[in-house]
Amino acid sequence: MATVKLVDENSLDPIVQRVFRDIKATKKIDQVPDFWRALASDPSHLELVWTHLKNVMQPGKLDMLTKEIIALAVSATNGCRYCINSHTAAVQRLGLDNEGLGEVMSVVGLFNMTNKLADGYQVEPDVFPEAR
Amino acid sequence: MATVKLVDENSLDPIVQRVFRDIKATKKIDQVPDFWRALASDPSHLELVWTHLKNVMQPGKLDMLTKEIIALAVSATNGCRYCINSHTAAVQRLGLDNEGLGEVMSVVGLFNMTNKLADGYQVEPDVFPEAR
Amino acid sequence: MATVKLVDENSLDPIVQRVFRDIKATKKIDQVPDFWRALASDPSHLELVWTHLKNVMQPGKLDMLTKEIIALAVSATNGCRYCINSHTAAVQRLGLDNEGLGEVMSVVGLFNMTNKLADGYQVEPDVFPEAR
Amino acid sequence: MATVKLVDENSLDPIVQRVFRDIKATKKIDQVPDFWRALASDPSHLELVWTHLKNVMQPGKLDMLTKEIIALAVSATNGCRYCINSHTAAVQRLGLDNEGLGEVMSVVGLFNMTNKLADGYQVEPDVFPEAR
Amino acid sequence: MATVKLVDENSLDPIVQRVFRDIKATKKIDQVPDFWRALASDPSHLELVWTHLKNVMQPGKLDMLTKEIIALAVSATNGCRYCINSHTAAVQRLGLDNEGLGEVMSVVGLFNMTNKLADGYQVEPDVFPEAR
Amino acid sequence: MATVKLVDENSLDPIVQRVFRDIKATKKIDQVPDFWRALASDPSHLELVWTHLKNVMQPGKLDMLTKEIIALAVSATNGCRYCINSHTAAVQRLGLDNEGLGEVMSVVGLFNMTNKLADGYQVEPDVFPEAR
Repeated sequence: MATVKLVDENSLDPIVQRVFRDIKATKKIDQVPDFWRALASDPSHLELVWTHLKNVMQPGKLDMLTKEIIALAVSATNGCRYCINSHTAAVQRLGLDNEGLGEVMSVVGLFNMTNKLADGYQVEPDVFPEAR
Repeated sequence: MATVKLVDENSLDPIVQRVFRDIKATKKIDQVPDFWRALASDPSHLELVWTHLKNVMQPGKLDMLTKEIIALAVSATNGCRYCINSHTAAVQRLGLDNEGLGEVMSVVGLFNMTNKLADGYQVEPDVFPEAR
Repeated sequence: MATVKLVDENSLDPIVQRVFRDIKATKKIDQVPDFWRALASDPSHLELVWTHLKNVMQPGKLDMLTKEIIALAVSATNGCRYCINSHTAAVQRLGLDNEGLGEVMSVVGLFNMTNKLADGYQVEPDVFPEAR
Repeated sequence: MATVKLVDENSLDPIVQRVFRDIKATKKIDQVPDFWRALASDPSHLELVWTHLKNVMQPGKLDMLTKEIIALAVSATNGCRYCINSHTAAVQRLGLDNEGLGEVMSVVGLFNMTNKLADGYQVEPDVFPEAR
Repeated sequence: MATVKLVDENSLDPIVQRVFRDIKATKKIDQVPDFWRALASDPSHLELVWTHLKNVMQPGKLDMLTKEIIALAVSATNGCRYCINSHTAAVQRLGLDNEGLGEVMSVVGLFNMTNKLADGYQVEPDVFPEAR
Repeated sequence: MATVKLVDENSLDPIVQRVFRDIKATKKIDQVPDFWRALASDPSHLELVWTHLKNVMQPGKLDMLTKEIIALAVSATNGCRYCINSHTAAVQRLGLDNEGLGEVMSVVGLFNMTNKLADGYQVEPDVFPEAR
C-alpha cells in the first residue's frame, strides 16, 4: 500500500489540476496512473518530474519504442514492480509482441550476468579500440 | 587490476583456443577483449558465457543497435565500469552519435529516478489498462 | 510470506526474551515488529543486530529525524518494501509532514538520476576543491 | 576516463553558456564540475537536469545540509564514485565534521544491512501502527 | 502478477516440451516452477537459460549446498522475491537448518554493510598481500 | 582516494589501539587493512563494526571458506571494488583455486541473470513445495 494518500483525480489544487490534465492529454488516457497521484502529495515535485519526463519522452534520435524498452530494461535491472508493469504495458501498446519482449528480457538478463562477472573479476576497461 | 591472471591470447587450451578464435571472427576484431581473457581462467565457463552471448546478440525482432543500447542501459544502471566503456564503444560503432548517446543517458537517468520514487512511495501497480 | 517462522513474542529463549523486552522499552511500543521476530529464529544474530542498531540510532551530531531520513533514503534506493514502510512511519512519528516527505523523495529521486548519469558517462571525480 | 569529450568551459553553444554561467553563480564556484561538462555533450539534457537539480536543492522543510546528507547516503548506497566524492565535499563545506560524517556512514551501513535482512527473510510490512 | 501468460505444463511446442521434461527429471519434481513457465513464452530463451543453469548447477569444486547458498546470497542482495523464496527452499531441502540459514543471512547482512562503508569512504584496494 | 584521512597504525586513541591490535591478532596479519584505518576516523563506529564482524566471521554451521565465498558473492553483486579484492584474496588464502573461483563467479553471474528475469517478468513466488 502506498505510504502517502493518493491524491484524488479531481483535486482542487491548481498545479495538480494542470498537471493531471496534461498527463491525460499527452498520454491519451482517461485516468491518472497511481504513480502521479502519489507524487501529487507534493504538487511542485509532481510538476517537476512530469515536466522532466515529458521533455525526455518524445521522439528524437531514438523512437518511442526504443525509449520505452530502455525504461523497461532499467526497471527490470532495479526490480521496480510498479515500473516493470507500467513499461511492459507501454512496449506492448507500442507494438512489441511476446517474442520481442522475450528478446528484451534475454538481453537484460545476459548483461546483468556479464556485468557481475566483469566486476567480480575486476577486469579493467579495454584500451585498444577494437576490443571495447 | 583483475583478480585473476588474464589468459594469453595464444593459450594452448583447446577450449580457450576455439572460443577466442570464434570471438575474434564473430566480432571482427584482432584482439580478445580482457573480459574474455579473464573468464578463460575457467575454460568451461568461458565457453558457456560466450555461447549464451552469441545466441542472444544476433538480430531478431530487435536490431543490434537496440540490443547494445539495452546492454548500455543495464550497465549504467549497475555502474559497471568495464561494461559501460565496452557498450558505449559498441553503440558508437553501430552509428549512434553524441546526441543519440545523450538520449540514451537521459532515459536511463529519468527512469532510475522514477523507479526510486515509485518504490519510495510504495505505489501499487496500476490495474486499469489505460494507466499502465 | 516470511521464509522463517516468526518467533512468538512470548518466546522462552532467554536471549530472545531479553532483546524483545529491550526493543519494546527502547522504542516505547507494545508489540515487537516482525523484522525482529524473523531475526529471532537465530537468537545470537538477533542480539548482534539489535545491539548494533541501538548503538547507532541515538542522537549524536545528527538528530534522530536526520538519521531516520537517511534510513528512508537508503531503503528507497534499495527498494526494500518492509524498510520503506517502517522508516516512513518513523519519520512521520518524528514530525515530518507530507511536504517534508515529498522533499526527501525529491532528493532521493534526483540523486539516483545523477548517480546513473555520472556512472553512465564515467565521469572521473573532480580534483579541484571548488568543483566537488 | 569519461566516455564523452568534456565540453569546454568556454563553449560557444548558447544553452551551454547560459547553464554553465548559472551553475557557477548558483554554486559560487569558478570552475564547472566535470559532471556538467559531460552532460553538456547534449545541451538540452544539461539544461533539463540542471533546472531539476536547482529546483530540488534549495532550502525548504529540509535544510541544505540534510539534503546533501541524503545525496551522500544515496550515492554511497549506489557506490557512485564521482557522486560520493562530490557530496562528501559538499557536506564538509556545509560544516559536517569527521564525527558527523562517521555518523552518516554508520547509519548508511546499518540500514543497508537491515534492508538485506528484511528482504532475505521476506518479512512482510508491519500492519500495526506501533510496530512500523 | 506475471507480465506474460505462463505457458501451460502441457504445451505442444517441441522445445518447451523437451525443456519442461528435462527440468522435471533433473530436479525430480512433478510440476514446472512458474519461473520456467514464464520464460517459455520465448522458447529459445527458455532453452538457453535452462542449458546454462544445468551446466553451472552441478557439483564441482563446490558442492550443491554451497552453490545454492551463493544463489540465496545473490538473491537477498538483489532483493528478488521469487528467487529468495526459491533458493531458501533449495538450501533447506539440501539440509541447512534454521541456524545455518541464520548464519547465511548474518554474513549477507554484514557484508552488505561493509560494502557500503568501503564505497562510502572510497577506500582504495589494499596492495600489501597480508591486508587483503 | 579515500574521502577521510586514514588513521595511522600507531594512533594514540585508546579505542583505535585496542581494535587495531585485535584485528591484527585475529587475522594474523602485520598491517591494518585500509578499510579499518578509514573507519577509525570514527573510533566508536570502528569498534562497533569490528565487534559485529568478529562475531559473525567465526566457524559455526558454515565453515570459514563458505562464509568468505558468501562475502565475495555479495561484493561481486554490489560491485564493491575494495571488497571484491579483499574477499578474493581471502578465499584464495583459504585454499580455493582458480577453478573453484571460476565456479563461484559462474554461480554469481547465473543468478544475477535469473534474478533479473524473475523480476523482469514479475513471476510470483511458487506455492507448491516441490517447485520452490
